[in-house]
Amino acid sequence: MVIDSHAHVMLPPKRQVKLMAEAKVDCTILFTSMIHPETATSIAALEEELNNLYDILNGVKNPLNERIRAIEELVTVIKKNPEKYIGFGSIPIGLSYEENLVWIDKYILANNFRGIGELTPGAGKIFQIEPLFRASQEVGNLPLWVHTFMPLNFEDIKELLTLAKKYPAVSIILGHLGGANWLNTLKAVKDIPNAYLDLSATFTTMAPVFAIKEYPERTFFSSDAPYCSPLTARTIIEQLVEDCHILEQVLGGNIARLLEIG
Amino acid sequence: MVIDSHAHVMLPPKRQVKLMAEAKVDCTILFTSMIHPETATSIAALEEELNNLYDILNGVKNPLNERIRAIEELVTVIKKNPEKYIGFGSIPIGLSYEENLVWIDKYILANNFRGIGELTPGAGKIFQIEPLFRASQEVGNLPLWVHTFMPLNFEDIKELLTLAKKYPAVSIILGHLGGANWLNTLKAVKDIPNAYLDLSATFTTMAPVFAIKEYPERTFFSSDAPYCSPLTARTIIEQLVEDCHILEQVLGGNIARLLEIG
Repeated sequence: MVIDSHAHVMLPPKRQVKLMAEAKVDCTILFTSMIHPETATSIAALEEELNNLYDILNGVKNPLNERIRAIEELVTVIKKNPEKYIGFGSIPIGLSYEENLVWIDKYILANNFRGIGELTPGAGKIFQIEPLFRASQEVGNLPLWVHTFMPLNFEDIKELLTLAKKYPAVSIILGHLGGANWLNTLKAVKDIPNAYLDLSATFTTMAPVFAIKEYPERTFFSSDAPYCSPLTARTIIEQLVEDCHILEQVLGGNIARLLEIG
Repeated sequence: MVIDSHAHVMLPPKRQVKLMAEAKVDCTILFTSMIHPETATSIAALEEELNNLYDILNGVKNPLNERIRAIEELVTVIKKNPEKYIGFGSIPIGLSYEENLVWIDKYILANNFRGIGELTPGAGKIFQIEPLFRASQEVGNLPLWVHTFMPLNFEDIKELLTLAKKYPAVSIILGHLGGANWLNTLKAVKDIPNAYLDLSATFTTMAPVFAIKEYPERTFFSSDAPYCSPLTARTIIEQLVEDCHILEQVLGGNIARLLEIG
């Protein structure tokens, strides 16, 4: 089974199904999207959408209503094609332990989501998600998917991995493989078996090459659609990996094992 | 004709020829490489190679002898397959106008290189390459290929484009499309017809999609090998561009026109 382990809701939903079919993806782990850059047909429209995203990533905006609306949108999309999608639910950064539990109960577990993310803590703000690690542990170890590209630096990634060590039952997926810090990240996760590596958004294919070489059981193919098409993301991985068994694991087996899919 | 508009010398040279054949690339614009990460088979070895590169990019190292050795290596590789390669020669950052002229004469023109790069000015140091724009203009407008990913920020890119406006006969190729600043870069080059866009190292395919849509005549396919394979880089572009004529231009026509190839 080929599983796109990280994509955001795209509009219209038919387009997402079509892109999955084109890439021969059987199942997508679907995440909310507060913005829809895939609908932009001009640079000006795209800029408006992306600036909203950067404001969220940089902590300038944290619109609760937008987040809840995006979760409802995700639920609606999954309900139309429940055999194609598994959801991960988003959560605001900076909640207390109790607030995390309330949110998880109301918006994650109630919607049958299987994990939490995309978490986008700001640089220097990793400490804000420690209560979430505790809350995840409390409710059965929901995996956490964390954006580790810009604006995070390697100090943040190390702090995140310290939390992963402190909560070894909580799986953490390092989105985008640490970004510019991919090589240090590969070294840092060595003895942290609950740290997994997402292969999207790589600006050099050396990063996934070495990630898969070192961690063939902990690396996940994903498109991060709409930021890359599932077909292109899959093709990149297929052209990198020669061993058929490892390819199968990276394209789906590894995430299936983590989330107990199929 | 399919032209990989930016790749570095890879070792052994046979491997580069094989990768070009696999990607059906007819001609590669070849640049020096002071390091050879493609020879690394372990993370430790890779780290050693890349740390050397980062030291050069960040201005910590600027080893003249290494640069000259890399130029000699490039000349040797091209001489073995002159029909497959066109060279761009490197130059130290920070030379005076006269020093630039001497270097260009000795290491660029004498080797029949057709342009200068990869230039890797540090953040806040774009002013150091103004004398090179003047020198290029003096010797017949050799195109300049500038790395615009990290560590440059958008202020640096704007300063670079100010130089491009001041020296309109000197073509400038913005390597890696401005990196994280790709959207602002796309807006900024609008009225600067001598500014061209290199499509390698994109961490989101939205960047080349909009770059090609806005500037179908000013965008160049490249692999940045060994940081991506020519086949993967070509496949990414082919999967993005539907119009056959535009695809042909991006895959080779545009750079052929700029460098008067074929």
